[in-house]
Amino acid sequence: MKRVVTFGEVMLRLCPPGYLRLLQATSLEMTFGGAEVNVAVSLAQLGLDARFVTRLPKNDVAQAFINQVRGLGVDTTKILRGGERMGVYFVEKGASQRASTVLYDRANSAIAEITPDELNWDEIFEGATAFHTTGITPALSDSAAAAAIVGAKAAKERGISVSCDLNYRKKLWSSEKAGRVMGELMPYVDWCIANEEDAETVFGIKAADTNLTSGALSHDGYIEVAQKLVARFPNLKGVAITLRESYSASRNGWSGMLYTDSTAHFSRHYDIDIVDRVGGGDSFAAGLIYSLVNGKSAQDAIEFAIAASCLKHSIIGDFSYIKLAEVETLLKGDGSGRVQR
Amino acid sequence: MKRVVTFGEVMLRLCPPGYLRLLQATSLEMTFGGAEVNVAVSLAQLGLDARFVTRLPKNDVAQAFINQVRGLGVDTTKILRGGERMGVYFVEKGASQRASTVLYDRANSAIAEITPDELNWDEIFEGATAFHTTGITPALSDSAAAAAIVGAKAAKERGISVSCDLNYRKKLWSSEKAGRVMGELMPYVDWCIANEEDAETVFGIKAADTNLTSGALSHDGYIEVAQKLVARFPNLKGVAITLRESYSASRNGWSGMLYTDSTAHFSRHYDIDIVDRVGGGDSFAAGLIYSLVNGKSAQDAIEFAIAASCLKHSIIGDFSYIKLAEVETLLKGDGSGRVQR
Amino acid sequence: MKRVVTFGEVMLRLCPPGYLRLLQATSLEMTFGGAEVNVAVSLAQLGLDARFVTRLPKNDVAQAFINQVRGLGVDTTKILRGGERMGVYFVEKGASQRASTVLYDRANSAIAEITPDELNWDEIFEGATAFHTTGITPALSDSAAAAAIVGAKAAKERGISVSCDLNYRKKLWSSEKAGRVMGELMPYVDWCIANEEDAETVFGIKAADTNLTSGALSHDGYIEVAQKLVARFPNLKGVAITLRESYSASRNGWSGMLYTDSTAHFSRHYDIDIVDRVGGGDSFAAGLIYSLVNGKSAQDAIEFAIAASCLKHSIIGDFSYIKLAEVETLLKGDGSGRVQR
Amino acid sequence: MKRVVTFGEVMLRLCPPGYLRLLQATSLEMTFGGAEVNVAVSLAQLGLDARFVTRLPKNDVAQAFINQVRGLGVDTTKILRGGERMGVYFVEKGASQRASTVLYDRANSAIAEITPDELNWDEIFEGATAFHTTGITPALSDSAAAAAIVGAKAAKERGISVSCDLNYRKKLWSSEKAGRVMGELMPYVDWCIANEEDAETVFGIKAADTNLTSGALSHDGYIEVAQKLVARFPNLKGVAITLRESYSASRNGWSGMLYTDSTAHFSRHYDIDIVDRVGGGDSFAAGLIYSLVNGKSAQDAIEFAIAASCLKHSIIGDFSYIKLAEVETLLKGDGSGRVQR
Amino acid sequence: MKRVVTFGEVMLRLCPPGYLRLLQATSLEMTFGGAEVNVAVSLAQLGLDARFVTRLPKNDVAQAFINQVRGLGVDTTKILRGGERMGVYFVEKGASQRASTVLYDRANSAIAEITPDELNWDEIFEGATAFHTTGITPALSDSAAAAAIVGAKAAKERGISVSCDLNYRKKLWSSEKAGRVMGELMPYVDWCIANEEDAETVFGIKAADTNLTSGALSHDGYIEVAQKLVARFPNLKGVAITLRESYSASRNGWSGMLYTDSTAHFSRHYDIDIVDRVGGGDSFAAGLIYSLVNGKSAQDAIEFAIAASCLKHSIIGDFSYIKLAEVETLLKGDGSGRVQR
Amino acid sequence: MKRVVTFGEVMLRLCPPGYLRLLQATSLEMTFGGAEVNVAVSLAQLGLDARFVTRLPKNDVAQAFINQVRGLGVDTTKILRGGERMGVYFVEKGASQRASTVLYDRANSAIAEITPDELNWDEIFEGATAFHTTGITPALSDSAAAAAIVGAKAAKERGISVSCDLNYRKKLWSSEKAGRVMGELMPYVDWCIANEEDAETVFGIKAADTNLTSGALSHDGYIEVAQKLVARFPNLKGVAITLRESYSASRNGWSGMLYTDSTAHFSRHYDIDIVDRVGGGDSFAAGLIYSLVNGKSAQDAIEFAIAASCLKHSIIGDFSYIKLAEVETLLKGDGSGRVQR
Repeated sequence: MKRVVTFGEVMLRLCPPGYLRLLQATSLEMTFGGAEVNVAVSLAQLGLDARFVTRLPKNDVAQAFINQVRGLGVDTTKILRGGERMGVYFVEKGASQRASTVLYDRANSAIAEITPDELNWDEIFEGATAFHTTGITPALSDSAAAAAIVGAKAAKERGISVSCDLNYRKKLWSSEKAGRVMGELMPYVDWCIANEEDAETVFGIKAADTNLTSGALSHDGYIEVAQKLVARFPNLKGVAITLRESYSASRNGWSGMLYTDSTAHFSRHYDIDIVDRVGGGDSFAAGLIYSLVNGKSAQDAIEFAIAASCLKHSIIGDFSYIKLAEVETLLKGDGSGRVQR
Repeated sequence: MKRVVTFGEVMLRLCPPGYLRLLQATSLEMTFGGAEVNVAVSLAQLGLDARFVTRLPKNDVAQAFINQVRGLGVDTTKILRGGERMGVYFVEKGASQRASTVLYDRANSAIAEITPDELNWDEIFEGATAFHTTGITPALSDSAAAAAIVGAKAAKERGISVSCDLNYRKKLWSSEKAGRVMGELMPYVDWCIANEEDAETVFGIKAADTNLTSGALSHDGYIEVAQKLVARFPNLKGVAITLRESYSASRNGWSGMLYTDSTAHFSRHYDIDIVDRVGGGDSFAAGLIYSLVNGKSAQDAIEFAIAASCLKHSIIGDFSYIKLAEVETLLKGDGSGRVQR
Repeated sequence: MKRVVTFGEVMLRLCPPGYLRLLQATSLEMTFGGAEVNVAVSLAQLGLDARFVTRLPKNDVAQAFINQVRGLGVDTTKILRGGERMGVYFVEKGASQRASTVLYDRANSAIAEITPDELNWDEIFEGATAFHTTGITPALSDSAAAAAIVGAKAAKERGISVSCDLNYRKKLWSSEKAGRVMGELMPYVDWCIANEEDAETVFGIKAADTNLTSGALSHDGYIEVAQKLVARFPNLKGVAITLRESYSASRNGWSGMLYTDSTAHFSRHYDIDIVDRVGGGDSFAAGLIYSLVNGKSAQDAIEFAIAASCLKHSIIGDFSYIKLAEVETLLKGDGSGRVQR
Repeated sequence: MKRVVTFGEVMLRLCPPGYLRLLQATSLEMTFGGAEVNVAVSLAQLGLDARFVTRLPKNDVAQAFINQVRGLGVDTTKILRGGERMGVYFVEKGASQRASTVLYDRANSAIAEITPDELNWDEIFEGATAFHTTGITPALSDSAAAAAIVGAKAAKERGISVSCDLNYRKKLWSSEKAGRVMGELMPYVDWCIANEEDAETVFGIKAADTNLTSGALSHDGYIEVAQKLVARFPNLKGVAITLRESYSASRNGWSGMLYTDSTAHFSRHYDIDIVDRVGGGDSFAAGLIYSLVNGKSAQDAIEFAIAASCLKHSIIGDFSYIKLAEVETLLKGDGSGRVQR
Repeated sequence: MKRVVTFGEVMLRLCPPGYLRLLQATSLEMTFGGAEVNVAVSLAQLGLDARFVTRLPKNDVAQAFINQVRGLGVDTTKILRGGERMGVYFVEKGASQRASTVLYDRANSAIAEITPDELNWDEIFEGATAFHTTGITPALSDSAAAAAIVGAKAAKERGISVSCDLNYRKKLWSSEKAGRVMGELMPYVDWCIANEEDAETVFGIKAADTNLTSGALSHDGYIEVAQKLVARFPNLKGVAITLRESYSASRNGWSGMLYTDSTAHFSRHYDIDIVDRVGGGDSFAAGLIYSLVNGKSAQDAIEFAIAASCLKHSIIGDFSYIKLAEVETLLKGDGSGRVQR
Repeated sequence: MKRVVTFGEVMLRLCPPGYLRLLQATSLEMTFGGAEVNVAVSLAQLGLDARFVTRLPKNDVAQAFINQVRGLGVDTTKILRGGERMGVYFVEKGASQRASTVLYDRANSAIAEITPDELNWDEIFEGATAFHTTGITPALSDSAAAAAIVGAKAAKERGISVSCDLNYRKKLWSSEKAGRVMGELMPYVDWCIANEEDAETVFGIKAADTNLTSGALSHDGYIEVAQKLVARFPNLKGVAITLRESYSASRNGWSGMLYTDSTAHFSRHYDIDIVDRVGGGDSFAAGLIYSLVNGKSAQDAIEFAIAASCLKHSIIGDFSYIKLAEVETLLKGDGSGRVQR
């Protein structure tokens, strides 16, 4: 079984039940999430050996997280214990024209206070085929950024495939700082993942003719973005972009593009009734990594990644409880939702 | 901060969880609702000083209500305490072709047994800019009708803007009695609010070419209704009508018209995935009052009212937990429901 | 009040709340279901005297079931008590492209271990007008098959109308065995009910030009299937087929055909937002039986059955909590879901 | 199976979960309760044919009640349908020194508005052995009182054993009126049931040396009360009194006395950890009726009644889900609560 | 109505349902708590005008708190908005020999980052009779300590009665630092409140002959502690000490002493079955302040404070939902927990 | 870290919330339990390397179990997958005089259908120090009995310490068969664990002067039982007996005896307020194994085992979420339940 290592943040996710707002809530659903751990969980559910590396305090909230993902098959043996707290975020699930909201309380977390030399990359990468991180981890703090860059470099040096999801978060850092720091990370990256906004905000690379709130998408524009990214970071083997058409908080169009070897591969398009879209992009990254690690063709890879992440939108929480067989059923064209007896 | 006074009924609202029917329920969600209090809560969330006046028994169910809306910023200092009970209603949330049902147990409530001279309108209207009531309050009892009429007259005399939502309820009174009593109230009303059925049932004023269950709507018909209302009640400054296209219990079209100064202003149209539509009309009234009190133009007012009430359909319960900034985002054209991080 | 007897299986149904998967669940909603009891409950809600016959162990899980359906007005006086267990099944509710899944644990149940001579059909059929069973009961065990055949034969001999829903379940038996056993039952059947797959898998009778997962349906194909069924089993008075277009797990098209007297009657078509589709076919069977027992015309019967089952899709659980008046409202064309105050 | 008829009130019972107060609640547990229906349910669980007679409106809250008790085996065929509402009460469960509170909203209920001639006692008493009502029903309204008296008289005339629990409720009527009305009912009563306060408040018959809040009880005092009751109402065959020692809302002592044939029989004493004590007295009445109907001796009867009601205190809600075998186990001396595997 | 001002911290309180541990939880009950806000809420429920002053970020979690306590009648108009986060704490409710656990995540909260000059004590103390803070606030940060001391001094200067609960928290500061900082605050304090450990850990003043874990208490020892406190801080008008006998997490003995005018007044002793003991000490402080503000005698004051806090132990959450009438009932000797109908 | 292997059954545990009975339930709490897995989980929480061996079907209910215990740190790598079902049991939690009830549906489970040669004991025992099984596994089926005996023998041969809890279950087998089969297993057992009933029912060895339901216990009697067991099975190194005094379903006395080297060691006695006592005996076994593996003295071992299992009674579910530090705190004498801040 191939090992993939992901490195980054995990937070306690607190969510009012159903469509309640925080101002209405008297209880909160307790799950966990974070871009990099979401990828690890998704990979483990698909059947890979996924190792998640982070830093967590020694308390029972952190232990509850470890127990949960360890139960889901994620290797947690390299998680560092230390620091004072785990980040927390609150999610209000939106519906129709009301957007979902995410309220973060993630400063001063154990992972933000990591020091790069706490991590033993030799041990972490033992047996690994691929490494994944995102633009969130470097945004947490300078030391977290340093750790991510050291990790990516260490992977590169060991011949381990590196993927990175730009994942720009405007509340964590400015686009200027993001551009500078991510610019240091990118030379070690093989596969760059982005949504329709990231490339522009982080690197100033703009998709022509795209109006995000209107949901109108231009295939040519995305190709152009990918071409520019590859031009800027010639080490890139490919650029994957998710194409989300946000009709409303309840319904989205969903498809993706994988640009590699100077060729753009567009996936099938899905219309989705959304249960929970947080983590949707991460399940896409996992689907892509799964495909690359397993040697799928570029077209198969983007189809697999989009199908896997399409299905994730029907799952509550950040984590993707989607099995390989379910992705394959959808890939074969059965999105009919007929009861499986 | 401008003060708006609303006067009328509030009931305990009991609702089976999710889509369960009463015959399936073993617990009931406990909230509160009523046309006039819904308007007050919505205004308070938008940032106005909303004062709600009613009559409630001295018990902990009523106190729970007071605590809740006081917490939401509604001024409850003029609520009278007395009487034996608070009305109760049961809501079954519908889906697809199955309609939501509402079962009322509201007779003999404290507000129905109010006597007009219990209310000190001088104190109630201190600092007030606007007064709102609906056709439900006069329908509760003759004394409640008398109180509403006295209130509207007192407002008019003080130069306070008066709005009234016709809100016909066939289980409370006949259309004949409604027409007679509301006919006494209307001379004090500046802004009349109605849905597509009210004008006809209460005043026999019919929207031509409208088939309610089919959902087909004629703009010309609604203009005609408004014109006839203004002709009948020349004191009216404007008539606002919500235009609901009921495709099913899960999906509605939603728009509105404000007719004033002999001109009809139609809002943008929204397609809504419904979370809870009870209270939708009241959030429209609140949006309209908010707009008028803040001196918006007629077109802006109807756009604001429809956007505010569009968003309310995504909220569980009668109350609209929608903030000003959220309405403004939608008004700017972003109904995409993209996650707000 | 006309009595209808249904005979077959009932299981404990365990379902994670909302859209949670089994791997996420810490509690399970506890209801009951089974093709034949679903029909009985649906008939009782529509106002008929429905008697359900099965075999259940003497324990409090079985008693909880009896209490529930007895409360719903189903006659449980002929239920046998014995055996060791009641079947159990787990339902994961799907959404969008993710299908609902059903996991059965039904072997060795009391009903599977029934012996035909435990049942006193004279007593069971006292006052009965109609008898209904499905292809699930014979699939449970040879003795259950024998009991069902004896029951159908006994009904036929007493001039009681017999209906049977083919309801093929591939995990219970092979299509070969299903064809053989159902072939023994069919000579006693007056009304055969099937979905778009059953006729082919059980009897090898294929609807031409139908691609199930694509959702494309051919009216002519269904007529052909019905004709072939009647040709094979000339005792049949009619064949009813549900036409489900599975756009996704969240949305379906829904209509049906009743073929009788050499004529096919197609119902109106509904687009459904699904709350719970398990039991949808059973509510169709109940609607059809209700119509036949009450002497409706073929066209009215298929319209009634489809409307009744359309509404069931908005109800959580296998049981259809739909009243006669609600079906009649929909039949009159009001599927607008407007609030019933 | 012997039939016992009970006549009186049933209300919707709404209770915050656990130990929450109404001011903290956002949901309410939905059950039903009322002195006379509680007795009927308890008798049905013990295995008797219990028929409950009341008057209920035609709506789904009342239907939910009927479904529930019909499911529990109570005969509901003689329940009248009419009137506008069902009473409602709110229960806050107390703990330690904080008492449980009960808030009633029961005025103008269908049963309070009953007219005595709506009831056909010939049909109601067909096959009946015993009749039970309580002091609550006559307190609801003059017409309800008349109905209860007519019922008791009708039972007496038919040789049916009549029991009545005094059940004084100070919020419903004064002790003066209670004394007068109950004085009209008592001549038809064979078995009078009371707690430690009722005899004094209703008939001014006082237990000497009893301090209720201190929990101190005098056996001689209770004998004296019973003797005085029998002296006042010489038709009485027996007087049963529950002896509750209220240490706190969480713990009670529990025992009882049955005085008959000039002899007082005291039961064993139990110390109870309370789950829900509402309905405890009604389960005692049921246990006594069960015993009398089945010809138990006076000592066995009081032991059975106290054991049955002791066990009820471990059950949530008004209804006693206690089976005959469980009472018998406790009667044999096993109150050890060892797991029954 | 007399106004009492409390100043300090409030945190989001997250608690697994029932007796679940964090490692078992999938949802968390969402309430709020903190020593000083608990006192304010308790006072408001008793009927005083309680004003709570703190600093909170501008987000919906903080707004949910404000709405809740504003609804409970607490004046929130002087709460500062600013900073990044609100503290969070997790409570696992213990039972029997397993202790409740509290896990804090309170660093870097808005209140810890307060600067003393943000507070306008003239406005805050307008109309105030009393001021209360605790040893937790100064422990949060040096600036919070400075603010508390400034506040106490400002109160003293205005002739406002000052009370302070020592409330030592070992995870926030050392006993050395606590002694030093609290030593600066104490000269402005009139009434010092402490539990059995605080005086020793903060000021090294030890209750002789007390073994905390054994639960054995010596009245003489507590008098000695109070005498030593008064000797050290001669401005003190009185010292109040709660005497908790921890038999287990489920059961406690509870009483208290108020030492004033050189005389020790001991309250009645209660044995408590615990629902939630967090906040118990704060409800004692509130009861004491209520008594002092209302001019009760020393003996009445300690009896009232202990009775009020005894009842709080039956309430879930930090806040004491206990009304004046309930305290008075218990003071009159009725702790029987008899149902209040 | 020392490895302990446990072998046996695990079932899906379904439990109505709180004190609800099955007849009241509409949802069931979903956990897992079984004598041997309970021991493994308890050991893992105490910090040992616990490996659990069983046989489970390939479905998501079984996977949910594996995920849960893998998350809790239990080694699940040797669990066999196969068979059709996992056993199920229903628990009604008792209170006061009402006993908890357990309803089993465990026949035909994957573990009951195990064949001894499916298990590779060389692999299973790699690195193992101790092996544990109970009398339940051999009771499931002859092949399960054979597997357990082979396992115990294999452990013995490898010098691995073997413990066995007699755990007699009368619904699974007769005491005659139990005696015969357990007699075959015992020669490989080093440490025999029993409750107060097991030795008598399985081997006819009776504790003199013990009346189980009365709760009276005789120390001498238990010593006598242990002596007789050792006499019968001279390979035994020790016999451990739990001494439960069942005052009621809510309260128990709890202590234990370890007899080894011809000496009886009695533990301290605890009075317990019970949250959930199912699994209490298994946590005792785990505490004993933990002690033996870590070389504690006999007295320390029995104190540790009783303290660990005392704490388990405060935990919901079969599994013991008790950490080593918590046991040690209690062992040091602090059972005061004071809040751990």
